[in-house]
Parts: sequence; structure tokens; C-alpha cells
Amino acid sequence: MTIAQLTQQECETMLGNLPGWSLRSDGKAIERTFEFADFVRAFGFMSSVAILAEKQDHHPEWFNVYNKVEMTLTTHDAGGLSQRDATLAEAIEALL
Amino acid sequence: MTIAQLTQQECETMLGNLPGWSLRSDGKAIERTFEFADFVRAFGFMSSVAILAEKQDHHPEWFNVYNKVEMTLTTHDAGGLSQRDATLAEAIEALL
Repeated sequence: MTIAQLTQQECETMLGNLPGWSLRSDGKAIERTFEFADFVRAFGFMSSVAILAEKQDHHPEWFNVYNKVEMTLTTHDAGGLSQRDATLAEAIEALL
Repeated sequence: MTIAQLTQQECETMLGNLPGWSLRSDGKAIERTFEFADFVRAFGFMSSVAILAEKQDHHPEWFNVYNKVEMTLTTHDAGGLSQRDATLAEAIEALL
């Protein structure tokens, strides 16, 4: 546990800035489902996110089927949410 | 249901040709987990599969976290497994 967890207030501020995202029921991750016109668009989005994620050294857990992408962000080294999740989610939103 | 389901014998033949894959418990899909050295390799593999999938107009259901990719192949229009799953899985194996 080398990375600081967000406080509850920081968490609320983060979610306030990320309208499409919601807190996972255990409070340790944020989630969003994205829908695109087709697979090419969905995977194009995933490719962009992959580059951002690698650059930030912080990677999503994600599921894809055809035009749908379900994404979960959490910080294992913090045992929950950290600033890294907020930063990656904001960068992902900026793609859209 | 416009696509023919594989018979049990065709299914066994397919799995015989795909050593790393297993039948999902309901018999309607095949699954394989892939592990790579890191995220860049895992996503590089996913990018290759994405191109094959789009070319074959048959797409996986898949989950990725860091260096791991869990893949499921099924044919919704067949209500289970079809030749499309065998063809895509064989093309994926040829990438490795």
C-alpha cells in the first residue's frame, strides 16, 4: 500500500467531475459502460485508452463485446481508489 | 438462428485442434485465458485479434486486466458454437 487512497470527500469530488461514472458497490472502484456504433469504433476507443493507460502506468480492467466496453478503474496498490483513477478517468472522458 | 450449430462430434474435433481452449460449462462457448509479459504485449495481441475478428465479422467477448486476456467465443446467431468460432480460434492460435 504505497499509494494514498482517496478520502470520501475526494471521492465525491471525483465523481462530481465524472458524470458518466459510478462507484462500485464496495466503494473500491469506479465503473462506466461505453457504447459505440460498432466494433471498429469500440476497439478504436480501447486503443486510445490503452495508450493513455500505458503512458500513465495505470491500466483499466475492461470487458468488451462488439460495440460495448465495460470499464473498471481501481488502484490495487492503494486497496481502493486513488488519484490515479481520477486522472485516468478524466483523460478517458477527454477522448470522447 | 441462421447459422448451423456444431454437432457434438464437430465440437470435439474442434477442441482436439485447440489444445489451450476449453468448453464453457453450458457447452455454448469456448474459452481461453492468455497471459503475456506485460500490458503492451497483451494489448498488442488484442489488436491483432481485433483485426482478424473484424475481417471475419465474428467478434470475441473478452476481458483484460494488465497482462491477462480472458476470451470467450460463441455464435449468438447459432445459439451456441458454430464453424465461425472454430475458424476464429484457429486464426488466433496462429498468431501465438
